[in-house]
Order: sequence, then structure tokens, then C-alpha cells
Amino acid sequence: MTNDNIQVRLAARPVGLPRDSDWDITREPVPSAADGQFVAEVLYISLDPAMRGWMDAGRSYIEPVEIGDVMRAGGIARVVESKLPQYAVGDFVFCMTGVQQYCVSDGVGARKVNPDIAPLPTFLGVLGMTGMTAYFGLLDIAALEDGETVVVSGAAGAVGSVVGQIARIHGCHVVGIAGGKRKCAYLVDELGFSAAIDYKNDDLARALRTHCPDGVDVFFDNVGGETLDAVLTRLRLHARIAICGAISQYNNTGPVSGPSNYLSLLVNRARMEGFVVFDFADRYAEAGKTMAGWLQAGKLKSREQIEDGVENFPRVFLKLFEGGNFGKLILRNTAATGDSETPVQKT
Amino acid sequence: MTNDNIQVRLAARPVGLPRDSDWDITREPVPSAADGQFVAEVLYISLDPAMRGWMDAGRSYIEPVEIGDVMRAGGIARVVESKLPQYAVGDFVFCMTGVQQYCVSDGVGARKVNPDIAPLPTFLGVLGMTGMTAYFGLLDIAALEDGETVVVSGAAGAVGSVVGQIARIHGCHVVGIAGGKRKCAYLVDELGFSAAIDYKNDDLARALRTHCPDGVDVFFDNVGGETLDAVLTRLRLHARIAICGAISQYNNTGPVSGPSNYLSLLVNRARMEGFVVFDFADRYAEAGKTMAGWLQAGKLKSREQIEDGVENFPRVFLKLFEGGNFGKLILRNTAATGDSETPVQKT
Repeated sequence: MTNDNIQVRLAARPVGLPRDSDWDITREPVPSAADGQFVAEVLYISLDPAMRGWMDAGRSYIEPVEIGDVMRAGGIARVVESKLPQYAVGDFVFCMTGVQQYCVSDGVGARKVNPDIAPLPTFLGVLGMTGMTAYFGLLDIAALEDGETVVVSGAAGAVGSVVGQIARIHGCHVVGIAGGKRKCAYLVDELGFSAAIDYKNDDLARALRTHCPDGVDVFFDNVGGETLDAVLTRLRLHARIAICGAISQYNNTGPVSGPSNYLSLLVNRARMEGFVVFDFADRYAEAGKTMAGWLQAGKLKSREQIEDGVENFPRVFLKLFEGGNFGKLILRNTAATGDSETPVQKT
Repeated sequence: MTNDNIQVRLAARPVGLPRDSDWDITREPVPSAADGQFVAEVLYISLDPAMRGWMDAGRSYIEPVEIGDVMRAGGIARVVESKLPQYAVGDFVFCMTGVQQYCVSDGVGARKVNPDIAPLPTFLGVLGMTGMTAYFGLLDIAALEDGETVVVSGAAGAVGSVVGQIARIHGCHVVGIAGGKRKCAYLVDELGFSAAIDYKNDDLARALRTHCPDGVDVFFDNVGGETLDAVLTRLRLHARIAICGAISQYNNTGPVSGPSNYLSLLVNRARMEGFVVFDFADRYAEAGKTMAGWLQAGKLKSREQIEDGVENFPRVFLKLFEGGNFGKLILRNTAATGDSETPVQKT
């Protein structure tokens, strides 16, 4: 049994929120490496809202996961067999592991990670796609300038919490929108946000007026729906909205709720732009170096919520849509790491 | 009576489409110029969809017209009295004339126009704010590149018809969306559009697939609503949408219909940006020179629909929202110009 590879496969295209019946848990023998491949034992799997989109058929920025395939995911793994010269047994790598215990890779999209720089889960958070998304979305797409007023939705989530911190490092007035008093307190007290709005308890429009009396220069949106509409009414001239996601809409069974207030873009000569972090792949190294510097200087904090067991993916994944995660949501392959609270770094 | 100044004043804030009761027709004596002012007899008044927005209370890119005020409008007028050194009696000027027969100006926002370059109404069309809007929206905001696929809505309207022609001059594949066979034939046969879609009779989504098989690089939107949503589904990577207006939404009594398909911006790393032509005032001269050159070379055609009588404004204005205009809609002060078909150039 210990040499089995437990896998989570897409069984059906979800309608709305994914259900247990949309998944198959399968077991296969641990794979072997062919020439030009390595096999790695998966340690940590990144859970992201964008994965919901990958489950749907149709044209998007990436091919959908096919029915019957192992669910796509990025993760951190340790090489256990290698027929690729650049990778040795024992190397820690980031790659598209999928939701399973062992993966095979031809090295495309893979890169080694150095556990001396940060704990391994951090390479899925601040130093991973999450951090890259925050960095390029805020600094390139939204073209942040020092001292501006920045609002971020999903602010206690993986990307949002990094966005707010980068804006703070740039001397901005940063307002986070998150659900619940505990998350809001964390944003202000621990991450140094200027203010936080609890969308579950506050009147969003009124709170935006209070905390952004002169309007909003940059909105980094992870949520969409009513949140986007509310912030649109508060734009300053030449504001920029980076559309990173719309988690409020991903499980809609009806049409997406479009932003009724989009003509605020006209009135305020503002722009709204979507982006996909993969487009910045040739600049990950630059961003990673900057982010690692901030991390080591204590300017940037990384928070992960680590859940156990590859086979628990169907239930854990839903936390993303229920406000159930606080920081970067990561699934740990307990079979490989054990269940210690301290993430495994080396064996 | 001939020395009276007939004026159209806003009597009430319209709910939905403006009605006769929203206007007062008043008569006053022709004004006199104080020091630093000129008085001009209004010849041609520009009628634009944006004027509908000026009638509503609330924050916008320009102050609302107050109840009781003469309706704001740009126009072409002839100076009849001047206590401003730069303006002499007989000069033709563009200024914010308002919807009336005589206006007073302190010269702010006014500029002389030269009737030797083009017929006077053209200075409200291709060589006026209309042309400037098309020019800067397409070339600056949408950052048009030669040879791209361009879609423009409201394509037989004042701005849209210029947008399409500028795109054609830049070697683009240009698809116009307009209402009715006659307008569509005009776009293709007279203005050199690559294709036209009749939104009243064609299936918009299907027609977009047919005429833009590889997707849309630039969308210049004057219409909003379902039109914007349909084009959003056809964006190419890194597409740009210039939001010039949303005529389908201006008379809504309920909320504006937001673009449900806005997440196409994310999938396609595309942007949607609003703009107001006034922001480009310091570059009007540059654009005007280029446009006049195209006009004189026969590359750009100007089409105006001229209607008679300042006092007919309430009825004529509605044509903009009923698809009743074909080209730039202009109200002629027949008391000054006579009703000849040839616009008056000099007296």
C-alpha cells in the first residue's frame, strides 16, 4: 500500500460547487521514469481558485482538465528517480504535480527550489505562483505608484495578502476586503494594512467611502460580483483595476454577474485589465529575488493553511469558496511528510 | 422677434428618454458683450449621445446641467459683437454655444475655425469633437496597430463612422455594427469597411464569428449592453476595448446592464479602458491636421444629418437614441443660416 500512488481524478464536470461525485479517488502503482523524465514524490499541493475554471469545458487561457484525468495542480515534490540530467534524486522541485502522491515530469515547467531560502510550502505561496501573481498583477498590470490608495479583495487569501503587503512596502494606503473580524484584524495587526473591511458585517459602500475618502487608484480584484461593482463607484481619475479572478462567480450556475458600474471606467478614464501570471514566466526569477529579499528582511509575511491528505482534496478544495482558508491553502501529502506541524524540508 | 434669442432650457431631470416636459423653450433679448467677452450668433449645434449624461445629477466627468439652465452643447457660431481682442465680428468659432440662437463667451474653450478648410458643419463632425474622439480613442486608448481586426459599434453614427475609416486607413480589417441594411451598405460601399453587421436583422454572435474568424484585437464601443457582451466573447489575446459610450444604457430607468462576459478580459489578458476626449485637448491641433489631410486627400468622408430649428431640439435629440441619425447629427439655427441645403459659410 505504501508504494501506491493515490490520485484524485476529475469524474464529471461540476455544475456549481464541485461535489464528491465529481471526483474519483484512484490508486495506481508508483510510476517509473522513462528517458528524459523524473519521478517525484509529491509533498505539498497548491490549491487555488483558478483550478475551478480548469474543470470546465471550453476555451480559456489553459486547456481544461479532461474527464478521467488526474486533477491538475502545482506542487512541491522530491525527486525519487531521475533520467533527466538536470535533476538528481533528493532534489526538491516545483512542478505541475497534479493532485496525487507521485508524479512524472519531463522537466517542462519544473524548477528546483532551495529549502535553505524558505520552508518548502513558501514556494507555493509568497515565492510561488501566488507571489508572482500578486507581484506582476500589482506592479505591472495595475502599474502601482508609490503612495497611491490601493484596495484588494480576497485580502486574507493567498494572493490578496501578498498584494496588500507589496503595496504597503511601496508606501501605499492599503485597504483590504475580507470576510470576518479575525481575518480583518490579521490584515491590519499582522500584515500592516491601513484598514480592513469585513464584507460579511460592514456596509461595503459606506466602508469604502470611510477608508478611501479620496477614491481608489488601484483595485486588485480576486472576487468580482458586488465587490467589483462597489469599488467601481469609488474610482479616482486614471484608476487601474487588475482582474486576477472572480471567486464569487466561479460556481455560478447562471450567468456571471457583470459589473453594472463599468461606465465608471469612462467617467474616470480608468482601465480594467485581466492577466494570467504564466505570461510573466521569463521574469519569475527577478520577482522571486525581490520577494525573497523582502521575506528575509521581515517586510513580507507568508501564511499557509496546510491541510492533510491527498485523498481529502475534494473537501479541502471547497474551503476556497466558503471563506474557509486563511492564507495560502495547501494540501500536504501526509504519507510523505508525516503530520508534524513543521513542514518537512529534507529527509 | 428676429432679435430674440430662442433658448432650450432643462426644465426637469429626465427619467429614461427625455420628454417634452423636461424642456422649456424660452426667449430672451440678444445678449451684449461685457469686457472680455464676445457675442456670437449660433449657426450649427452638435447633438451627441453624451449630452444625455449631462442632464443627470451626480458626479461625472463634467458638471451636470442645472435645472433652468440653457442646455449645454458645442456649436459653430459667428461673432456679432466682440470685446475680446482675439475675436473680430464675422469670425467663425467653435465654442460651447448651448442650445440657443445667440451665445456669450469669454473665449474659454473657444477656437476660430477656417471655413476655407471645410464646410462649417464638418467642424462639428470629422474636424470637431467627434473626430477627435474617434482619433484619440482608437489610436491612443485602444493603441491600434496596423493590420489588426477592429470592431466598432454605433458604426454609422458620428464617431463610429470616423473610427472605422481611420482603422481602414491603417490597413485594418474593419467590421462595423449598425442598425439596418441601408446603414450597413453605406459602411461597406461608401466608407470602405471590410464588413458590416446589422444588429437588427443579423445574429450578432454568429456574424462576429463569420467576420472575425480569428477574433477581435480592438473594439471601439459606443453602445454597451448586449453588443459589448457579444464582442467580449470574441476577443483575441491582448485585445483592447475603448469605452467611448453606452448609448443602449443611457435611458435605462433600472441599473445599467454590466458586461457578464467581462472575465474574457482575464482569459485573453485584455483591457477595457474608458476615456473622455477633453483630456486630449492639448493634442487637438495635431489630430485636426492629420484628419484634415485625410479629408482633403479623399481618404476620410464626413457625413452630417442636418435638422432645422433650435426650438426643435427636444424632438431632434431623440433621434440619437432611436437610431434615427445617419452620420453626425447637427441642429441648424435656420434663423441664421436659412434653410438652404448648402450650409452657409460666410455672410
